[in-house]
Amino acid sequence: MTEALDARYMALALALGRRGQGNAWPNPAVGCVIVQGNRIVGRGWTAPGGRPHAEPQALAQAGALARGATAYVTLEPCSHHGQTPPCAETLIAAGVARVVVAVEDNDPRVAGRGLRMLRDAGIAVDTGVLADRAAQDLGGFRLTRAEGRPWVTLKLASSFDGRIATATGESQWITGPGARRVVHAMRLGHDAVMVGAGTARADDPSLTVRDMGAARQPVRVVVSRRLDLPLGSTLARTAGEVPLWLCHGPDADAPLAEAWDGIGAKRLECALAGGQLDPASVLRALADAGLTRVFCEGGGALAASLLSAGLVDELVGFTAGAVIGAEGRPAVGVMGLERLAGAPRFALVETRAVEGDVLHRWQRVAAG
Amino acid sequence: MTEALDARYMALALALGRRGQGNAWPNPAVGCVIVQGNRIVGRGWTAPGGRPHAEPQALAQAGALARGATAYVTLEPCSHHGQTPPCAETLIAAGVARVVVAVEDNDPRVAGRGLRMLRDAGIAVDTGVLADRAAQDLGGFRLTRAEGRPWVTLKLASSFDGRIATATGESQWITGPGARRVVHAMRLGHDAVMVGAGTARADDPSLTVRDMGAARQPVRVVVSRRLDLPLGSTLARTAGEVPLWLCHGPDADAPLAEAWDGIGAKRLECALAGGQLDPASVLRALADAGLTRVFCEGGGALAASLLSAGLVDELVGFTAGAVIGAEGRPAVGVMGLERLAGAPRFALVETRAVEGDVLHRWQRVAAG
Repeated sequence: MTEALDARYMALALALGRRGQGNAWPNPAVGCVIVQGNRIVGRGWTAPGGRPHAEPQALAQAGALARGATAYVTLEPCSHHGQTPPCAETLIAAGVARVVVAVEDNDPRVAGRGLRMLRDAGIAVDTGVLADRAAQDLGGFRLTRAEGRPWVTLKLASSFDGRIATATGESQWITGPGARRVVHAMRLGHDAVMVGAGTARADDPSLTVRDMGAARQPVRVVVSRRLDLPLGSTLARTAGEVPLWLCHGPDADAPLAEAWDGIGAKRLECALAGGQLDPASVLRALADAGLTRVFCEGGGALAASLLSAGLVDELVGFTAGAVIGAEGRPAVGVMGLERLAGAPRFALVETRAVEGDVLHRWQRVAAG
Repeated sequence: MTEALDARYMALALALGRRGQGNAWPNPAVGCVIVQGNRIVGRGWTAPGGRPHAEPQALAQAGALARGATAYVTLEPCSHHGQTPPCAETLIAAGVARVVVAVEDNDPRVAGRGLRMLRDAGIAVDTGVLADRAAQDLGGFRLTRAEGRPWVTLKLASSFDGRIATATGESQWITGPGARRVVHAMRLGHDAVMVGAGTARADDPSLTVRDMGAARQPVRVVVSRRLDLPLGSTLARTAGEVPLWLCHGPDADAPLAEAWDGIGAKRLECALAGGQLDPASVLRALADAGLTRVFCEGGGALAASLLSAGLVDELVGFTAGAVIGAEGRPAVGVMGLERLAGAPRFALVETRAVEGDVLHRWQRVAAG
């Protein structure tokens, strides 16, 4: 009975936490629910920019009703003094009787210290409620702590036969307006949208979120070894309004670098591997700059590079009912795969129709 | 009220009719329900091999209760004397008061004559009940009459990125056992399974339906311009047990042709167009030989040839969560498409998970 209730309140806390996805970076998007008796008296989630945290907001809502209450938090409360007092202290000061946590924080500054502070103060602490879902939702933040890289969602919209454009480069539109709206909503749930230089040149995209009342646009990341994107492109022209980050190699042209600095783009120098930008180095640079969740929209070369390196956490496909044929541009480039057994494998999460297209979502199969 | 009841009984007749799909050729797979008052007193569908027809079987079940009853038939009852008396006469003789028909027969030997015979005998006749679904179910038979070709379902099972094999030809297994079971069930609903010569050589398939208690195996069709398939292949070795038909060009080697004749394969000589077998000629030969529904399972070249010629009625995709990359073999070969607007387009019918793979089913978009 208590277990079922705990799971219900934690599910609510997780749903609240997801509201912050794409907005909370560099902090984790946490959710918190305060329950007094069987009444929800406080709800909070990480504010845009990462502060205030979820707990103080939920406690402020609860006010005096927090005393003796149970707090449901999706991530272990922080224990370190930063710009604000640690959340563990705030929970203690509010007089909660019990704290239920979904997953521990793997940030080395916390890593169990938050839970210990609570227990030392005589608060009952339970952990592991909906831990898998929380580890999933907070996967980006946890990966930055565990592996120094953000969560990567790779989205590819293709024809029935896996083509993203005709041989002559025509790509608008293979999938329909419904799929594009879902893509914009997905962009909003990520800290950044990322494309390769080829796609940036071919499609001249804006990579912004439109028609969704977005309060804050995701960062736009272009992976371009030589920085040789047109300075007259839509991305360049809007660099003053929406953040534009360029991941480039050590051999990029210095005058070009200056020009991009001049229009307000942020440059991240990354290492090469095998004669091209090392995808692991690109992701490390993005994590170091604070990103926790990156939405990659291709093209084929960048997709192949991330997949080959085992750096894709979630795969999202949109499949249209058009057939383009083998001359068309492949959704995934050359991967150098020798055996089928070595192919990256993903487990199906969901499939559904989105207007006339098929959405299918997959997640990395945990390495045995 | 009557309309809703008519639709309900016709839906049942359609479901019965579908039981004959894959078994009734060269005849249409028709369903029939006899209703006396509000009681179903007879049910029938076209027997394996196409005879007896649905109506006499349903009438035999109904016996004396057929007098004054309503007969629901998915296709206009036949009016011509063949091996048996025409069904229109049988319905008149049984004394039914009303006949409800889904679609008229477009066979020039019938084409409204069956309905006229019934009306001339004083029977009330209504047509057009669930006509679209019936035209769909009976699409194969109707296409043989209207266009001289069978219905073509094209099935392609591929990786996430539309590849059916690695560069070295490894293809077992990209999709899982659940998808394979669904494919075997789909084979059973068709008169024949068809592959190109490349697939026959690469996979050495048996193309039979296994583990489903199939009473009758679909015909196996291989499209091979030069008949240069290994005579030691599984298909050749089993040609005496399950029909094997070979569609070849006029330039096939005579001793090879004799060898195939010798092991019991049936040869259909087809015309060339643009230096390769003309897919329209192949389908015409199959329709002339009695086939109404063909299930094509690739490979890429045959798929591209059928799609380019606008000869695919239904498209079935199975998408796996493996990624192979651009060196892999494409599910659809070169199509010579110049503009995206010229790409064949299909409308989504359904998508669902089949174990860990995605099934998506599409149908031809009716030409404006």
